[in-house]
Amino acid sequence: MRKIAESTVRRLSLYLRFLEEFEEQGASTISSAALATRGGTTSAQVRKDLSFFGSFGKRGLGYEVPALKQQLREILGLDRRYRVVVVGAGKIGSALVQYGGFKDRGFDLVAIYDNDPAKIGKKWNGLSVRDAAQLEQDLKHERADIGAVVTSADAAQSVADRLVGCGVTAILNFAPVQLTVPEQVAVKTVNLVLELEALSYVLANR
Amino acid sequence: MRKIAESTVRRLSLYLRFLEEFEEQGASTISSAALATRGGTTSAQVRKDLSFFGSFGKRGLGYEVPALKQQLREILGLDRRYRVVVVGAGKIGSALVQYGGFKDRGFDLVAIYDNDPAKIGKKWNGLSVRDAAQLEQDLKHERADIGAVVTSADAAQSVADRLVGCGVTAILNFAPVQLTVPEQVAVKTVNLVLELEALSYVLANR
Repeated sequence: MRKIAESTVRRLSLYLRFLEEFEEQGASTISSAALATRGGTTSAQVRKDLSFFGSFGKRGLGYEVPALKQQLREILGLDRRYRVVVVGAGKIGSALVQYGGFKDRGFDLVAIYDNDPAKIGKKWNGLSVRDAAQLEQDLKHERADIGAVVTSADAAQSVADRLVGCGVTAILNFAPVQLTVPEQVAVKTVNLVLELEALSYVLANR
Repeated sequence: MRKIAESTVRRLSLYLRFLEEFEEQGASTISSAALATRGGTTSAQVRKDLSFFGSFGKRGLGYEVPALKQQLREILGLDRRYRVVVVGAGKIGSALVQYGGFKDRGFDLVAIYDNDPAKIGKKWNGLSVRDAAQLEQDLKHERADIGAVVTSADAAQSVADRLVGCGVTAILNFAPVQLTVPEQVAVKTVNLVLELEALSYVLANR
């Protein structure tokens, strides 16, 4: 794969968000300075980020919004759909299934699992909670691109191991634990409490 | 302030989570190996992380759970309460106000603001949505430690500027934009879509 720093990928996402808003407002060109503001960076960095992918603005005119938007979508892999399985049907798992923003961006939640008999069979947003024991069996027949780990911290590593064993190579982790995975597996962690504690640490130690 | 890498602070949060669970299960000592598993690291790294703060396990016995837990709480600044103001009363803002996990960890949501007349005055979880125009006036009298920016990407930077202008030095940003703030202000970003796109990038480019 192309070796691009995570911070660059994040800026590309931010530029894309901005281009989408900009297009909605009917604008057809955008300057590197405007993109820089949104990405928290400089015009020079924007030009460097984009020239790396072969996109060059026109001096005095800037970038064409639809063309750059389409190019960023391709680079970020957003021109296809991804199948997401969610493991853990607690509060966050349920919120994920009810969150409309996934589908809009090309991420289809195709199944949700839990091992709690009280939850198995419940229906959320048209998805029935499946028995987690079925995971391996199901993933033999139904491809999953991304596994969302929404279990307790205790269970998270073994769930991640099982997903990886099924061939899942991208994990979105909501549990407060640092998952250990093989090198070819990508993990992103989303955890509000960890971010809050990073802020309280800063507040308490200055 | 003590200069500690963000990755270390994150591991300390993970160790703390683990110690809390461990204590609930009635355990009184824990090994560096067990802490390492949860932190996705090695026993040597755990010993290094903790010795930095003057905490030393006993060979063959490990660390005392209640004492280490208390020490980590102090280091992370969790022995006091923090006042959080939320700016933006959309879907995520409303979810934040309704989320019980904040209070449990010492973060009190004290006010929520919006500039939409249709939202101002609505009550969520006992908090009335206030007019964002009042922000500066209110924060003169009511201390805020942390500002949560839950606005559109468009509005996020100016809201952050206003919070910083009011003396807020820690910002939790949910908007898909890289905020530019003075050096002494800490910002943590929580954004599910950015994390998903980082995964789709990886999946599309290998």
